[in-house]
Amino acid sequence: MMSGRRAQGCCCCCWSHLNEDNGRFLLLAALIAVYLTAGASVFSALERPSEAEAQRRWNRTLQNFSQTFNISAPELRDFLRRYEAAMAAGIRADALRPRWDFTGAFYFVGTVVSTIGFGMTTPVTVAGKVFLIIYGLFGCAGTILFFNLFLERIISLLAFIMKACHERQLRRSGLLPPNFRRGSAISEVGSLAGWKPSVYHVMLILGIFAITLSCCASAMYTAVEGWNYIDSLYYCFVTFSTIGFGDLVSSQNAAYQSQGLYRFGNFMFILMGVCCIYSLFNVISIVIKQVLNWLLRKFGCRCCSKCHKSSARLGRRNAITPGSRFRRHNISVETDGQYDSDTEGRRLSGEMISMKELTASNKVSLAILQKQLSETANGHPRNVSMNTRQNGFSAGVGALAIMNNRLAETSDSR
Amino acid sequence: MMSGRRAQGCCCCCWSHLNEDNGRFLLLAALIAVYLTAGASVFSALERPSEAEAQRRWNRTLQNFSQTFNISAPELRDFLRRYEAAMAAGIRADALRPRWDFTGAFYFVGTVVSTIGFGMTTPVTVAGKVFLIIYGLFGCAGTILFFNLFLERIISLLAFIMKACHERQLRRSGLLPPNFRRGSAISEVGSLAGWKPSVYHVMLILGIFAITLSCCASAMYTAVEGWNYIDSLYYCFVTFSTIGFGDLVSSQNAAYQSQGLYRFGNFMFILMGVCCIYSLFNVISIVIKQVLNWLLRKFGCRCCSKCHKSSARLGRRNAITPGSRFRRHNISVETDGQYDSDTEGRRLSGEMISMKELTASNKVSLAILQKQLSETANGHPRNVSMNTRQNGFSAGVGALAIMNNRLAETSDSR
Repeated sequence: MMSGRRAQGCCCCCWSHLNEDNGRFLLLAALIAVYLTAGASVFSALERPSEAEAQRRWNRTLQNFSQTFNISAPELRDFLRRYEAAMAAGIRADALRPRWDFTGAFYFVGTVVSTIGFGMTTPVTVAGKVFLIIYGLFGCAGTILFFNLFLERIISLLAFIMKACHERQLRRSGLLPPNFRRGSAISEVGSLAGWKPSVYHVMLILGIFAITLSCCASAMYTAVEGWNYIDSLYYCFVTFSTIGFGDLVSSQNAAYQSQGLYRFGNFMFILMGVCCIYSLFNVISIVIKQVLNWLLRKFGCRCCSKCHKSSARLGRRNAITPGSRFRRHNISVETDGQYDSDTEGRRLSGEMISMKELTASNKVSLAILQKQLSETANGHPRNVSMNTRQNGFSAGVGALAIMNNRLAETSDSR
Repeated sequence: MMSGRRAQGCCCCCWSHLNEDNGRFLLLAALIAVYLTAGASVFSALERPSEAEAQRRWNRTLQNFSQTFNISAPELRDFLRRYEAAMAAGIRADALRPRWDFTGAFYFVGTVVSTIGFGMTTPVTVAGKVFLIIYGLFGCAGTILFFNLFLERIISLLAFIMKACHERQLRRSGLLPPNFRRGSAISEVGSLAGWKPSVYHVMLILGIFAITLSCCASAMYTAVEGWNYIDSLYYCFVTFSTIGFGDLVSSQNAAYQSQGLYRFGNFMFILMGVCCIYSLFNVISIVIKQVLNWLLRKFGCRCCSKCHKSSARLGRRNAITPGSRFRRHNISVETDGQYDSDTEGRRLSGEMISMKELTASNKVSLAILQKQLSETANGHPRNVSMNTRQNGFSAGVGALAIMNNRLAETSDSR
């Protein structure tokens, strides 16, 4: 917000550029508010009758029970309060597995660091609660990093496979020479580097994988836990998405047949499911971001079209200005890169041209201002390249990408 | 993994580069496994006695109750089973707020899309469960995007503020000319673009903010809910980190004094807290990633040092090779950029030099191979720039950054 306000003095491009970031954020917040309101109405309509029904049923049960054994309502309520307290410590009418033996505690810490948080087991001692805060702080951070690295690995793998299919197509259609060496160094490099898979294809693949995984897991839970299949699917989604209500929790009974095998299967399904759904959520969020960009273009800034022409011309002029090796490369290449991905974009889906050319040219004009500034402030031209690269915001808004864009240590952490 | 295996044929640089990604991932997985084991042992030691105590207490209560009203154990167990079923529908001994009126349902969907998932309210109808799966899929994806955009905004703001302080320091020490215009276009551009704040400073600021927020929220909960302060802090962490056990849930009683105000305060605290802790987790995960890189360097690939020299020389040679405008810029600039951030790195903390120079030179050698490949496969040299940029992995491993690196639609989505 503040940066948006302070930017008023800057050139129109910079202003609309900053404004676009804030605009996207506020638009998303508004859409989420609408989404929540709609969801609340639907759930209220769906669940309210059953709530009333459950309340009636319980009142009847309570009345019968108190009449049968002539227990006064206060006595009974007091007894139930004690039972609630006991349940908080993991006690149920039917015997459950011990909460805090090693396997139980391991299950618990797993639900903590993954932020599933079923709540079937919770610390009750003060020491346990304090330790949980410290333990969870680093545990959750580590798991977020794990999920992000998994996401990187899985998308590398998908890109590799889809590139291989792409190559086969090209070879079929004869666009690739027959003596093209698959599996060789060059092919390897090309496979991982050259061609980018579509976000929709990756979303489709991850979606299919997630559904398959959930169905397999549900089959296991239906067989072992005796839940019906819909409940098992519901449990899989609630768990894999790390929501973790805790109304259904797997592997809680005191004993199962082939217990060790079931516990291992349960662990593997939850691990794979959480990683897979996390990746799927992130891919979907990319699509949502594109919808937001499309909406922003609809409301779109009129000033861009005329303002980008001038600065784009400026950009091209600067791109071929002779100067220090650093300056020529650093200023020109960013625009080249921008125009490349721009033409790439035009070739692929043809969207966001004006905004992208605006950003590209914007970067050039910024680069000049920054060169002056950085030479005044820090007094070495090399910083220009950092500035231009940083202004590109080309790394996107990913959690760690932000750090890489804006934090010093991360840019040399690899 | 597969990409790692396939890469054997590739040049040593590329191999060790891919290997490094897989190595970091596996190292983190191993460390998390150790962390979980240690945590499980500690929690088991802390909580086991209280579990046994609770069990004893409950058995006593049960025995007294069944003796006082001479109820057989099976009858009592059956009654308690019914009560558990009623509790799943949100019924408690002491009256709670309605589960599924609009405000209750809104609270519920909030815990779904944020993946907190207290479980104080859960759908019991089949329709509700099926709708939850569809609703949660897009809701959670949207919220992940919201958190990432919030992270981007908050770090922009922090960078802006810290840059302003940095400028004031420079002005005090007289490194900046007195006629340097603050708040002007140049200053604005410089503030947002030039200087990068330290990840440790951002972590410190976010940490202080998170602690302050939690303390304020805990004060409110202690006052309104009547929990003790440690419980309130524990509730704040469990909620803000989206673990959401549900053993303590705010705003569940049927009535509070100044209810509307409390519900609004509760909502705002949870919203701010979740965003803040999410950002903090991501900053901490960056630090964890640096530790992993440091560990990998410790185990470090010996071959890099000798192998980077040759290819680095190759890189410099290529950087000044006259050729098509695109090729010269695209190949050379990435290395320049690398060497810039490299020197930047050396200036700032001096870590990861060899690995970074390896990556830089690596990119150059890849660029040449890719140029050949892409000209065979796609037949236009512009792709080279995409390749070099993509191989840099300079965008880091952030959720959305991965997409920006590897998915086509995202590269032109802004």
